[in-house]
Amino acid sequence: MTATGQFVLTLSCPDRAGIVAAVSNHLAGQGGNILEAQQFGDAETGRFFMRLVFEDTERDLAALEAGFDAFAKQFAMQWTLRDRGQRRRVMLLVSKFDHCLADILYRWRIGELPMDIAGVVANHPRETYRHLDLDGIPFHHLPVDHRSRTDQEAALTRLIDESGTDLVVLARYMQILSNELARKLAGRCINIHHSFLPGFKGARPYHQAHRRGVKLIGATAHFVTAELDEGPIIEQDIERVTHADTPEDLIRIGRDIERRVLARTLRLYLDDRVLLNGAKTVVFHS
Amino acid sequence: MTATGQFVLTLSCPDRAGIVAAVSNHLAGQGGNILEAQQFGDAETGRFFMRLVFEDTERDLAALEAGFDAFAKQFAMQWTLRDRGQRRRVMLLVSKFDHCLADILYRWRIGELPMDIAGVVANHPRETYRHLDLDGIPFHHLPVDHRSRTDQEAALTRLIDESGTDLVVLARYMQILSNELARKLAGRCINIHHSFLPGFKGARPYHQAHRRGVKLIGATAHFVTAELDEGPIIEQDIERVTHADTPEDLIRIGRDIERRVLARTLRLYLDDRVLLNGAKTVVFHS
Amino acid sequence: MTATGQFVLTLSCPDRAGIVAAVSNHLAGQGGNILEAQQFGDAETGRFFMRLVFEDTERDLAALEAGFDAFAKQFAMQWTLRDRGQRRRVMLLVSKFDHCLADILYRWRIGELPMDIAGVVANHPRETYRHLDLDGIPFHHLPVDHRSRTDQEAALTRLIDESGTDLVVLARYMQILSNELARKLAGRCINIHHSFLPGFKGARPYHQAHRRGVKLIGATAHFVTAELDEGPIIEQDIERVTHADTPEDLIRIGRDIERRVLARTLRLYLDDRVLLNGAKTVVFHS
Amino acid sequence: MTATGQFVLTLSCPDRAGIVAAVSNHLAGQGGNILEAQQFGDAETGRFFMRLVFEDTERDLAALEAGFDAFAKQFAMQWTLRDRGQRRRVMLLVSKFDHCLADILYRWRIGELPMDIAGVVANHPRETYRHLDLDGIPFHHLPVDHRSRTDQEAALTRLIDESGTDLVVLARYMQILSNELARKLAGRCINIHHSFLPGFKGARPYHQAHRRGVKLIGATAHFVTAELDEGPIIEQDIERVTHADTPEDLIRIGRDIERRVLARTLRLYLDDRVLLNGAKTVVFHS
Repeated sequence: MTATGQFVLTLSCPDRAGIVAAVSNHLAGQGGNILEAQQFGDAETGRFFMRLVFEDTERDLAALEAGFDAFAKQFAMQWTLRDRGQRRRVMLLVSKFDHCLADILYRWRIGELPMDIAGVVANHPRETYRHLDLDGIPFHHLPVDHRSRTDQEAALTRLIDESGTDLVVLARYMQILSNELARKLAGRCINIHHSFLPGFKGARPYHQAHRRGVKLIGATAHFVTAELDEGPIIEQDIERVTHADTPEDLIRIGRDIERRVLARTLRLYLDDRVLLNGAKTVVFHS
Repeated sequence: MTATGQFVLTLSCPDRAGIVAAVSNHLAGQGGNILEAQQFGDAETGRFFMRLVFEDTERDLAALEAGFDAFAKQFAMQWTLRDRGQRRRVMLLVSKFDHCLADILYRWRIGELPMDIAGVVANHPRETYRHLDLDGIPFHHLPVDHRSRTDQEAALTRLIDESGTDLVVLARYMQILSNELARKLAGRCINIHHSFLPGFKGARPYHQAHRRGVKLIGATAHFVTAELDEGPIIEQDIERVTHADTPEDLIRIGRDIERRVLARTLRLYLDDRVLLNGAKTVVFHS
Repeated sequence: MTATGQFVLTLSCPDRAGIVAAVSNHLAGQGGNILEAQQFGDAETGRFFMRLVFEDTERDLAALEAGFDAFAKQFAMQWTLRDRGQRRRVMLLVSKFDHCLADILYRWRIGELPMDIAGVVANHPRETYRHLDLDGIPFHHLPVDHRSRTDQEAALTRLIDESGTDLVVLARYMQILSNELARKLAGRCINIHHSFLPGFKGARPYHQAHRRGVKLIGATAHFVTAELDEGPIIEQDIERVTHADTPEDLIRIGRDIERRVLARTLRLYLDDRVLLNGAKTVVFHS
Repeated sequence: MTATGQFVLTLSCPDRAGIVAAVSNHLAGQGGNILEAQQFGDAETGRFFMRLVFEDTERDLAALEAGFDAFAKQFAMQWTLRDRGQRRRVMLLVSKFDHCLADILYRWRIGELPMDIAGVVANHPRETYRHLDLDGIPFHHLPVDHRSRTDQEAALTRLIDESGTDLVVLARYMQILSNELARKLAGRCINIHHSFLPGFKGARPYHQAHRRGVKLIGATAHFVTAELDEGPIIEQDIERVTHADTPEDLIRIGRDIERRVLARTLRLYLDDRVLLNGAKTVVFHS
């Protein structure tokens, strides 16, 4: 961990007059200097969301948390505070399609994704990924079929817990998590679905898209919930296709969309820009 | 009608070796010079599609049609031949949302859309559109409610027939055609749906999109069929939205998508670039 | 003017610790409730920019300005404060190409652009725009050639001053303002240039683009300065083109880009989201 | 080489009536079945361009070439004929920025880019690329400085010649080829420039873009010519940026644009879809 003296605060609470000023005031009173602040009041739900980046060279995380706790209670705030020098631990789950994994690893190596990799979990053996440099990354082969599902998920859960994983990324994992695991990982498990949701949920979305004759295909990064492909959407993107594109062309074009949508989502998440708002997200872009 | 000496031939038939050469040869043998040719063989259905633009300064449309008929029969072709100087007659159907109508009228006046307007049919009185210049365009007020639907559609059908309408455009018409009328207008009635189909079919798609929390919204131009929002898709486009956009913002942003998707579709159609392929379309872009 | 009780404050000043908190605190101390706040510290120039929307149901604009003045001096702030119910007066300058004008008028009529139109100034007679509804809008025909330029600009300047114009929009005006007038209108005159600046400055950019064989064309909205096509850029967009597109096709495709870029820019400006930062802009998107 | 029985013919010649029919006819007469045909007549230069894919299960490349030669002479055609099973040999030149190289290698391994890699030439030692799997790929370290430029280029030229390289790709090579080498490689050397040409030619384009305050940045793939950044453009793309993006952000965002533009260009080239048209290109998209 590198000491940066920079902290990110995210919070949500019932909306009411004066929150922005009160939070700003509280941080300033503690000696913090606000570098960025973004907020959103959801008129429908009456809920307020905020993200602040501030500098405090005198206090550490524990002291700041202690200072903020009493304040936050007055507003019934749900909040997180993170030292920007503290990297999150990310577990990458992958199937035989490794384009998202390869892309994430490359970006991580050149410094685009400030995180530690807690491990790679694959339902194929390491040999499948021999062209990728996995040096120094814990690799776990957890094969799965319909009989072994429960055991495999128990092993996966242990890995997540024991490795201190903060975020689980389904990087084209192609397996459905049990409701139990989905619930356990609520808000910290991201999936990349290879369609422009809510269109083409479920299996083989590119084949569905081809059959329907759409002129654009897409990909969607969302939080995993117990309901398949219904989790809060974080980021989406599309590419143009034509009648001449076969399902295989859509799969190829789709790979590009999937990896850039997932990479963007990961950067947003790692910078505390993604907040849950019921079945939706608040995403504070820079 | 302006004599251009240019003709557009579109055709589809069972695929087999030699079609491209046979068609090229036939036209050349008749004295035609091919300016553009595009083709597509659908490997799934075994059907072949072609669009040709050619010049023939000696023959007129009737002579060319007579010459092509026997040839086409050998290949069991479905085909159309159009003199490029012959403008199609387009009937525009509109509800109180007139942004697509205003856009089409403007583009038509400055020469972007080579067509004749057979008329405007609205379920609101002419006064509703007083800011639009409808000079010289037949305007028909056909109000509709659940009791008058049958009578209104009978009147509409008469207008379409009597005006020699080639194409009907539902420019945010907001009424569902009867199965009977949809079938009568098969392949010559285009709707603009205000969502990225197949997501958010049916009513109030922007409200559906807002509820789902998508990060992109879209619009879809498609042929009208008896099944609501299931017709062959011709063109789609999207815009990025955020958590801060209200349903009203989506409606506003959507207006821009709708009008450009519909205008592009109309240009494509008027240039004989849109061919039906079962429940899908073949769109030959330039 | 509609009383909304909502105000927009924009400011810039030398960056230093504590500004966000100080401004929030000041407004809250005056009884204001902050609804939106966005800020940006330019690390290169050491300058800080902020936009706040707040509600104050007790004070009016004059009282708020008086209250803010002394505070602002401590930070050497340049600032503006606007009652959101107070519409800006916009003068539209146009040449024979009226697609941007037609688009702006339509959006204005349906309520997309909260402004008053101070007038339309054209170098072609009103008859040129007969298909547009200019009812109730002051129209001024100010023809111009190389001999009359000085007189024409004097007349234009008078119109701007006498009509209480806040913002001048060159909606494809196709005339170059004198340095003197450009300086007078600094920060309140917007031009739409029909290229992706800094590419293709000057005359006939679509012909330049065609000659160079680019695969994308664009449009740029920027503040007008004395240096041609060098003013601070506010917004840009592009469309894909191909080798088959003629200069006339580029002009047609470009019209769509121009009008949407200019409309977006106008909305951003009218909502006080565009701040000048030397030769660049800070644009606070929602 | 895999026998596919499929061939791609590209040609250009002075435009005149009857070319499409004559070519179709010639191929059909030889027993070929046309699968795809695209053509373009450049009205400005009077030059005609065509790309055909056809199937011929009886003749091999040599026989087809012999058969086409006499025919082509009648039309003064420049032409190439390629057996689709015959992969091109591509030499990749790279500097320390290896994101384009990593991307090309990944796509090549999973079968997206049908080519053989003739070698990788780098001005940094192999150790620089240790995270990339270069197994089985000839790697050449050719360091260069201002004194060694001539020698280095002689070595590079030898490598190109001896390896039977068909296409040279400057995958962020960051060195300027001599006029002599540029001329030698005319039409078979592609560069990815990290700006939206013709904006920001030359060095450090992202820093130039940041200074100008543009709202979109881009990348451009073009053929290399003796004039720096002036070669015929093949493909371009852009991403949206904001005032808050630093030059380093632009470099990061730009990496994504560069690699997808270069990958698309490579696919187009490998499928014989890119034809030279003087200082421009004709690109036949599918």
